[in-house]
Formats: sequence, C-alpha cells, structure tokens
Amino acid sequence: MKSLSIGIDIGGTGTKFGVVNTEGKILEQATLPTAEYSTPELFADALSQSLKGMISGCGGKDHFRGVGLGAPNGNFYTGNIEHAPNLRWRGIVPMARLLSERLDLPARLTNDANAAAMGELIYGSASGMKDFFVVTLGTGLGSGIVSGGKVVYGKTGFAGELGHVIVKKNGRPCGCGRAGCLETYASATGLSLSAKEKMGKALSSSEVAQAAEAGDKVALEIFEETGMILGEALANAVVLFSPEAIFLYGGVARAGDLIFNPTRNHFEKNMLNIFQKSVKILPSGLIESDAAILGAAALG
Amino acid sequence: MKSLSIGIDIGGTGTKFGVVNTEGKILEQATLPTAEYSTPELFADALSQSLKGMISGCGGKDHFRGVGLGAPNGNFYTGNIEHAPNLRWRGIVPMARLLSERLDLPARLTNDANAAAMGELIYGSASGMKDFFVVTLGTGLGSGIVSGGKVVYGKTGFAGELGHVIVKKNGRPCGCGRAGCLETYASATGLSLSAKEKMGKALSSSEVAQAAEAGDKVALEIFEETGMILGEALANAVVLFSPEAIFLYGGVARAGDLIFNPTRNHFEKNMLNIFQKSVKILPSGLIESDAAILGAAALG
Repeated sequence: MKSLSIGIDIGGTGTKFGVVNTEGKILEQATLPTAEYSTPELFADALSQSLKGMISGCGGKDHFRGVGLGAPNGNFYTGNIEHAPNLRWRGIVPMARLLSERLDLPARLTNDANAAAMGELIYGSASGMKDFFVVTLGTGLGSGIVSGGKVVYGKTGFAGELGHVIVKKNGRPCGCGRAGCLETYASATGLSLSAKEKMGKALSSSEVAQAAEAGDKVALEIFEETGMILGEALANAVVLFSPEAIFLYGGVARAGDLIFNPTRNHFEKNMLNIFQKSVKILPSGLIESDAAILGAAALG
Repeated sequence: MKSLSIGIDIGGTGTKFGVVNTEGKILEQATLPTAEYSTPELFADALSQSLKGMISGCGGKDHFRGVGLGAPNGNFYTGNIEHAPNLRWRGIVPMARLLSERLDLPARLTNDANAAAMGELIYGSASGMKDFFVVTLGTGLGSGIVSGGKVVYGKTGFAGELGHVIVKKNGRPCGCGRAGCLETYASATGLSLSAKEKMGKALSSSEVAQAAEAGDKVALEIFEETGMILGEALANAVVLFSPEAIFLYGGVARAGDLIFNPTRNHFEKNMLNIFQKSVKILPSGLIESDAAILGAAALG
C-alpha cells in the first residue's frame, strides 16, 4: 500500500528532508548542506543517495506515493527552480526531474510558501478549508493562497506573492527592484529596518521582540506599526479572495500576541463590512520544525 | 438538443434578458423595468411570462440548458441577491429559485462583474484563458476574477471585489462606509469627483472625456491620475493572481486611449519584474450592448 511520502525543503543554506506517513508523522528525517554542492546534479545525487537509504528502511519504493519539494522560486507547472537568488545554482534548475529520475518516483515541486499552505491543508489547521492563506513572516514574506480548494498558481505558476504587493508608494527599497513592497515592512528584515530607523540600533527581529516583551515603548511601537501595515494589506487581500482564515508563521509570528494583536486589530478596522469578524488570523497548526518537511510531503 | 441558454441581467432600473445560442448570438431579447415591481415575486412572474413566450418561440423548453442571472450583490453559492443597495427589494431575495420554479429550468445567479467574466470566457476575447480579470468601470468598479479556469468566489461567494481594495489611506469616502477604495477613483463616479475637485465643475465622466479629447489640460491630467491609480492597483493584483490578461469595460473604458494609455503605462511601471510586459490590458471582446445578456447566459 502506498501510504508514505517524501518531503524535501530546499533552503539556501540547508535542505531538510524526510519520510511522512498519512497521519503527518515524520518517520525519518535528515539534512544536507545545500550550499556545499556546486551543481544541482551533485546535490541531487547526494540527496537521492540519502533518500534511497530511508526508502529501503521504510519497506521499499512500493510504499511511496511520491516526492514533494518546496524550494525558493519553485514553479509548480514546470518542476523547475527558476533564477533563485538565494541558491548558488544559476538559471533554471529542473529539480523535480533530477530527483524523479534518480528515485524512480513521481516528484512535484512548488515554492516554500505554497508548500506551507499544502502542509496546513493536509496535516495542519486548515483541514477541510477551501479558501485560506498561509503567510510566512521570515527573512522575506511568502504566501500560499488556496482558493476553492486549490493553490492559486496563475498563468505563470508564480501567483500568490503577497510579499510583493506595494503598500507604500516610494517606500522602502525592495530586493525585487521596486519600493514599498509589503515584505520590506512585515518580515524579520522589516522589523530590523524599523529598529534601525526608530531605535538607531541594528537589532534582529527577535531582539526587537525581547525589547517589546520587556516593555520598551519604541519596540512596542514597531510591532504596532508592523501589525498595522500587515493588517491593512491582509484586509485588502480578503476582498479579493474571501478566505475563511489566514495562518501566520515563521520567525516574526513566533512573537505571538506582539504581532497577532495589532495585526488583528488593524485587519478588522480596515475590513469591508460584509467580511467583518468572519475571517480568523491564526497561528499555524503545524509544529514549526516539522512544517517545512510536511508542507513538501503534502505535495507528494 | 439543448443548445440554448437564457441570460438575464438585473439592474436597478432595468432588466435585460434574452435567448442565446452556443455561438453567442442573441436570438431574442427584451427589457423589463425592474424598479416598477414592488416584490421580487411580482417581478419573477412578469419576467417568466415574457421568457415563456421566448422559449416557445425558440422551439420549447427541451432546447434550453438553463437560466443564468447577473445581479448586484448576487451570491453564486446560494442563488440569492443579498442586501442589494440599488434594488428596491430589501434583504435576501432567492431570485434563482423564484425563476427556476416558474420556468422549470435550472437557474444560476452571480454578480454582474462575475457574469461579465463568464461572458468574456465563453463568448468573448478570454476564450481559452484560465487566468484573467474583467474589470467593469461604471458607476462603481466591479471585477470578476478567473483563476485556474474558475471564477474566484471564496468562502462567502463575495470574493473578487477589486473596487473595494483600499488604495489611498484616509482617501475619498466610499459607499461601503470606509475610505480610499479603488472605486472612488477609478470609476465614472471617481472621474466626476476628480472633475469637481480639479475643475470646480460637476461633469459626468463622458463630459470629462470630451474635454480631454478637445485638449483640456486638466481633463487630461484627470485621466492620467485615474490611470495611475488603476494601473498601480492592477499591478498589485497581478502579483496575487498572475493573470494572462485584464479586460476593462463599462462607461469609463469607452474613453479608449484616454484611460487605457495611462493605465497601461503605470501598470508596467509598477510591475514585479517576473510579470513585466507579459500581462495585457485589453478592451472587452463583446459588443457592450450584448455583454450583460451574454455574461448571464454564459452561467446558464
């Protein structure tokens, strides 16, 4: 019986991967230092070597449905990683095919935020929902949008980029080349920038959170303003998608009430009347250390 | 053979309806003065009376697939018109059921902008597209969003309200009770408001267009600014949906280059690099007088 999936989360520095059963339990897992492999082929060789070990340890290939991959700039339609700025491999990398060939199993690939949304749907708190967002507040701001039970990929495969909605005209410069994108404010990087602007100090987002916990007024103000910008942007996205819930996770979401309270407050303040008090902003239902592998496995 | 559909477009003042064949030809059509019927039942009685005449004139009920309705505040999931401010019937009106019972045909209902999107898909220029928007620039700004081949309805049935994305904090007051919604700028009403602000005159949107055609600098500036606000909002929507094309229609779109040029210009200026020069902004492929009936019929 095919009851197992492989989940692989490719990050700039490390790759996490593991074997997941239908209940969302990770049976085996390991990591690989992504940045140490000079070509995608060498990386795929090493990864599939490790995975073959896991596969035979779990009773062999016949028990596996397939392989799911989450990767930066991953394109679901093609299975390629396309021009990922955080990976050392340039251009277009056919990663799903490289692994599928080596493992002789079907492989699907998408970007990390879409994988997170699939993980929330299959193994987390979005179970049974057809319309929801997962927003990852990490170094950047990623989002996976599920509408009518399906991840929104659009014509190109690159839809759902909430982090690149421009929320402030001529605002902070963004890595995308434009200015004022949501991710320049509502992300770990955004919090650090706010700390630099308002406190004159180079603090990490968790240091800003610690300061706010200790009652520092400026740090609290930073969370209030970050929550305002995020809440307003999410309220605008609600009129387009009418979701049932929005799940926040990643580093910044770990700040808990510090970020959830102002976000929920400004979200409701800016909400179109027909959607008021009906859309929940929730933490992820997945344990964070498992989420990346589970999200990828949910694809497989 | 069931090759015919009935399309009904319910508006605040008038209701247009007709019989449409598979090629998108309107075989028969007529209108009814919506506002003159004190109850939805009386309206449904009169409408079905007329339609029964058309149905027998077209060879009888066996040739008909069903009935499609476009209506303000129409909910696709329930078939109800819910609290439509522009109709004299208050509360929740089960219009799809009222007509389905009287005609003994299946009936589906959605809002006018979603019907317009279906019309563009089935009979217009979006044929074969899976990801596109239809934006109606009339008294308000309506939108129908198609993603992955399906109209985006969301959890409530009321998704796709691009007109109620807030584009300017503390901007113009909107009929929805909030401020700065896109439709307060990029609609016929928005153009009139701009004329009042900048020219000190109460002009209709077509009078502003006439002035611009005649070379009036302020009128041209109004179109430039309206196109800027619309182009920016559409560029933001592109990162969420990755559409193939965006169709503009309604009164303001009739101004042609006056509105299309600045909209396209600011759309591209604000576009995320991966989507640059790949998303077309186009006029509707339907003759405007037919679009409402065709859109509704596309549902049936």
